[in-house]
Amino acid sequence: MPSGTAPTTTSNRGRPGYAREDVIRIAVEEFNARGYEATSMGVLAERLGLSKSAIYHHITSKEEILVEATDRALAELSGVVDHALAETDEPVGQLRLLIAGTTRVLCEYPAYVRLLLRLRGNTEVELGIMARRRVITRTLIDVVDRARAEGSLRTDLDSGVVGRLIFGMINSIVEWYQPDGKYSPEDLAALTPQMIFDGIVRDGSASGGAG
Amino acid sequence: MPSGTAPTTTSNRGRPGYAREDVIRIAVEEFNARGYEATSMGVLAERLGLSKSAIYHHITSKEEILVEATDRALAELSGVVDHALAETDEPVGQLRLLIAGTTRVLCEYPAYVRLLLRLRGNTEVELGIMARRRVITRTLIDVVDRARAEGSLRTDLDSGVVGRLIFGMINSIVEWYQPDGKYSPEDLAALTPQMIFDGIVRDGSASGGAG
Repeated sequence: MPSGTAPTTTSNRGRPGYAREDVIRIAVEEFNARGYEATSMGVLAERLGLSKSAIYHHITSKEEILVEATDRALAELSGVVDHALAETDEPVGQLRLLIAGTTRVLCEYPAYVRLLLRLRGNTEVELGIMARRRVITRTLIDVVDRARAEGSLRTDLDSGVVGRLIFGMINSIVEWYQPDGKYSPEDLAALTPQMIFDGIVRDGSASGGAG
Repeated sequence: MPSGTAPTTTSNRGRPGYAREDVIRIAVEEFNARGYEATSMGVLAERLGLSKSAIYHHITSKEEILVEATDRALAELSGVVDHALAETDEPVGQLRLLIAGTTRVLCEYPAYVRLLLRLRGNTEVELGIMARRRVITRTLIDVVDRARAEGSLRTDLDSGVVGRLIFGMINSIVEWYQPDGKYSPEDLAALTPQMIFDGIVRDGSASGGAG
């Protein structure tokens, strides 16, 4: 389900004009371009080339689209978490898998994740989605904390701050990553753990840091 | 001019009810909470406790506020750039000052910078502001590039990607930093260069990375 996927038909097969997949993709593009709050059903209808009444054959509310799109992003991210925790008991290994896997998901589903990250929490539904997002952040922080406790990470860094800075770095990918550019998702998924674990300074070079 | 600053009077001194500073601060809060596109002059008037006509004594358009607020953020960030480039000729030193200084600005002016970072470029004015923001990003990438060229940074990392990941990490601060929390802007401004330059792995610990 990358945002550029080919049209598919799902439960709404047979309804005229659009597969559900396309409706969601186009609506998410619109939310990301204008802001979710500023996008009305009328705007969505216009963008889809449907009348204001015809759009209700496809979606009952813009909130429905928000939930479906962020569900997909959260499912992908939760899959990364489950995989990382199942693959190894070693916190440093888990952290490496979390960073690489999250990087890959963000490169592959930038539109859905961007929608997820830009939520403002103005409705109960949004707050519920943000709570699920927070569970993933807490898991990362917990893994950082365990890696630190076992002596693998520097102890002068606070786990909560480090976890948020790590996700801040990775999350920025949805703002600038070019799917057709010179880096594949795999390239970036190899780069981010290296940069976060080992820093950018060449071994043996004096960085001027206190260390 | 932190967002929590005390009311001041500037060029609009004498107009009833609000100092200009407060109008800007409250409008920016509203833009950040609802989205700039979704915030009407009517909403701003209500939030300020003014009538729809009285608000025009204070501001001519919401765009005026957008420009003033992002001007302040850009002025602070440009100040960091100017300082870093004037302070030393050494690219690694410049990079360290850029990272620390940007971190400090984001901790001190999170509301204005958040507005700057969340612009979508839907108007000419927004595109102009985003172009000024891009100059700062390009400067950082250029400094990374020079530090790399002189052999101070690892050469397996692309300067453009590294520059964007660095700003991604730092920019996240406006989303989670608590001004009343346990870390001062100075604390974070000491932490981010360390984390970016040297990574999070304890010296001598096997990180499992290829290095």
